[in-house]
Amino acid sequence: MSSFEIIARDPHSAGRVGRLTTPHGVIETPVGTQGTVKGLTPAELRECGVQMILANTYHLYLRPGHQVIDSLGGLHRFMNWSGPILTDSGGYQVFSLARLRTLSEEGVTFQSHLDGSRHHLTPESATSIQEALGADIIMVLDECPAYTSSPEEQQLAMERTVRWAARCRQAHPSDSRQALFGIVQGGTRQDLRERCAREIVKLGFAGYAIGGLGLGEGPQQMAQVLDWTVPHLPVDFPRYLMGVGPPRDLVAAVLRGIDLFDCVLPTRNARNGCLFTSAGKINIRNQRYREDSGPLDPLCTCATCSGYSRAYLRHLLMAKEILAHRLLTLHNVHFFMEFMRKIREKIAAGRLAELAAQVAAWA
Amino acid sequence: MSSFEIIARDPHSAGRVGRLTTPHGVIETPVGTQGTVKGLTPAELRECGVQMILANTYHLYLRPGHQVIDSLGGLHRFMNWSGPILTDSGGYQVFSLARLRTLSEEGVTFQSHLDGSRHHLTPESATSIQEALGADIIMVLDECPAYTSSPEEQQLAMERTVRWAARCRQAHPSDSRQALFGIVQGGTRQDLRERCAREIVKLGFAGYAIGGLGLGEGPQQMAQVLDWTVPHLPVDFPRYLMGVGPPRDLVAAVLRGIDLFDCVLPTRNARNGCLFTSAGKINIRNQRYREDSGPLDPLCTCATCSGYSRAYLRHLLMAKEILAHRLLTLHNVHFFMEFMRKIREKIAAGRLAELAAQVAAWA
Repeated sequence: MSSFEIIARDPHSAGRVGRLTTPHGVIETPVGTQGTVKGLTPAELRECGVQMILANTYHLYLRPGHQVIDSLGGLHRFMNWSGPILTDSGGYQVFSLARLRTLSEEGVTFQSHLDGSRHHLTPESATSIQEALGADIIMVLDECPAYTSSPEEQQLAMERTVRWAARCRQAHPSDSRQALFGIVQGGTRQDLRERCAREIVKLGFAGYAIGGLGLGEGPQQMAQVLDWTVPHLPVDFPRYLMGVGPPRDLVAAVLRGIDLFDCVLPTRNARNGCLFTSAGKINIRNQRYREDSGPLDPLCTCATCSGYSRAYLRHLLMAKEILAHRLLTLHNVHFFMEFMRKIREKIAAGRLAELAAQVAAWA
Repeated sequence: MSSFEIIARDPHSAGRVGRLTTPHGVIETPVGTQGTVKGLTPAELRECGVQMILANTYHLYLRPGHQVIDSLGGLHRFMNWSGPILTDSGGYQVFSLARLRTLSEEGVTFQSHLDGSRHHLTPESATSIQEALGADIIMVLDECPAYTSSPEEQQLAMERTVRWAARCRQAHPSDSRQALFGIVQGGTRQDLRERCAREIVKLGFAGYAIGGLGLGEGPQQMAQVLDWTVPHLPVDFPRYLMGVGPPRDLVAAVLRGIDLFDCVLPTRNARNGCLFTSAGKINIRNQRYREDSGPLDPLCTCATCSGYSRAYLRHLLMAKEILAHRLLTLHNVHFFMEFMRKIREKIAAGRLAELAAQVAAWA
């Protein structure tokens, strides 16, 4: 089981610094969880300051299969990562990647995007698959409608999310070493978010996630939903904002009491040449960097900034060398981990607002 | 300038261990030069035992341009590699990649495969482009016909190669720190190979390469050409067999007095899942490795074999994760570097034949 302890609070906001203890080590929060590998080794992730990685249940279930991973000693050993791991329930990818989905109260039937094979995912199987994988933190199966769904659709999805959460809670062994987190849905309606939060909290989880954000609703809407939801979550449990986001959104969420994030932004942006630096975002494909002998970010201490010029990194990317993805991803991951470290530092110093002001213009 | 010293000889063959001194360090030969990066950093290449890397003049000339690299302090600094570098003349890629090639006595006119722009490469410009790049060893521009060319075509190409070599020699400043190597062509005809070797040696280069092999002619034909050619090269200069090859061919060539190799095999094979191990070649895509918890090669000390199972490496490759390419390439490069180290060791011990027998069956 995990335990969570708050060790510092921002006197001017709901921001807090916490310590989340898992079977594979202690995580200092607020923290960004680094999604799938994308060219970096566990040793490099650790050097970048990554504390926890996120693995996708949908992908691992289809290939190589959770039984294979279980028989090989679990995900930590399989990936050669000894720190904490978080798995999602698989539901999100079923809705975004799989084909011919049929949703029922029982669960979701779908065809693999890889080979068209038919599969059935239920709250119970999502829980047991994640048990086989062996992550430290696992998630309930939820239904996450598009943020453009009608209020009625949002309500039905929220209500099903609550019923499914109860079934996951039921399926999760009480003596498990894995921490099961509940998820609050409810789209952009205050009444749904509040009801869902209360219902999910009533079920009792090791932590609480907020889903259905970071999908295009914009920063005002996101802040609004957090303002409606977070006050209904227990103060002394970790809170996880799923799928968010750029630095500005991270700070906005931390100010509202969020402890945990996951985001593909640093890795996906890196592959497109979009780099985060202490002076804001740059795109290394820009012609202006063709003969630029300086590092991506003069204030950065990552291996990429220590060894390579902007001109060389641009060259590697333009030449489609895979080393480009690797070196640029390393920098962005390092940047985000440093950014989260600064957030923790600023909270402890009661000066989180300074950071918020700095990144407000970054978009 | 470079210097070459033979420090051990195989008493049973023409094999020798040498020390090639370059402006960026001493290379122990026989040595495999590692072609372009393919996902590994210079630091990793060094850890694998790579002594010298090969960079392609054609690619760098087109993008980012040799002037750009020159203005940024040369190729070593650009790539963050402080050891010896070898560049080819660019001719090979012009013949294999560029479009609308027109060959004349003056040189070759071609269109870039990237943007269709027109370019002209001559013996003189190939030499000066390589000067701007700043490699330790540079190559003359040669004409390399297909090994299926007619005897007449082979003779014309060989004669032009000699005339172009003379022009490169002429264009190369006598006080240059770069070592210019000549190239022997002549296809699979004894008279042409012998004539070409004598003519090229007469021009006087810092080392001698044998081109036009490893193109599908097979091991017997390759050995035959080496037997015709190497005796005409001066004993106390480095000999470079271009574009070769699998372990069996490396040993066969070393037995005939070759000191230097370059080959895309370890990196290209790795990307296809074909790995070299102390027990021979394996393809990690094979279903039998799906639940194999062992390392690629139990006798290997590379980072990939220390950290990851065959099952995980197979999974990464099947899932098209770029980390697969990286980890598999690292292993194969490490294997080849170890293999060359063993060759040097066996020569010094007078037991090279043992290694030849071991790899004879590997294909």
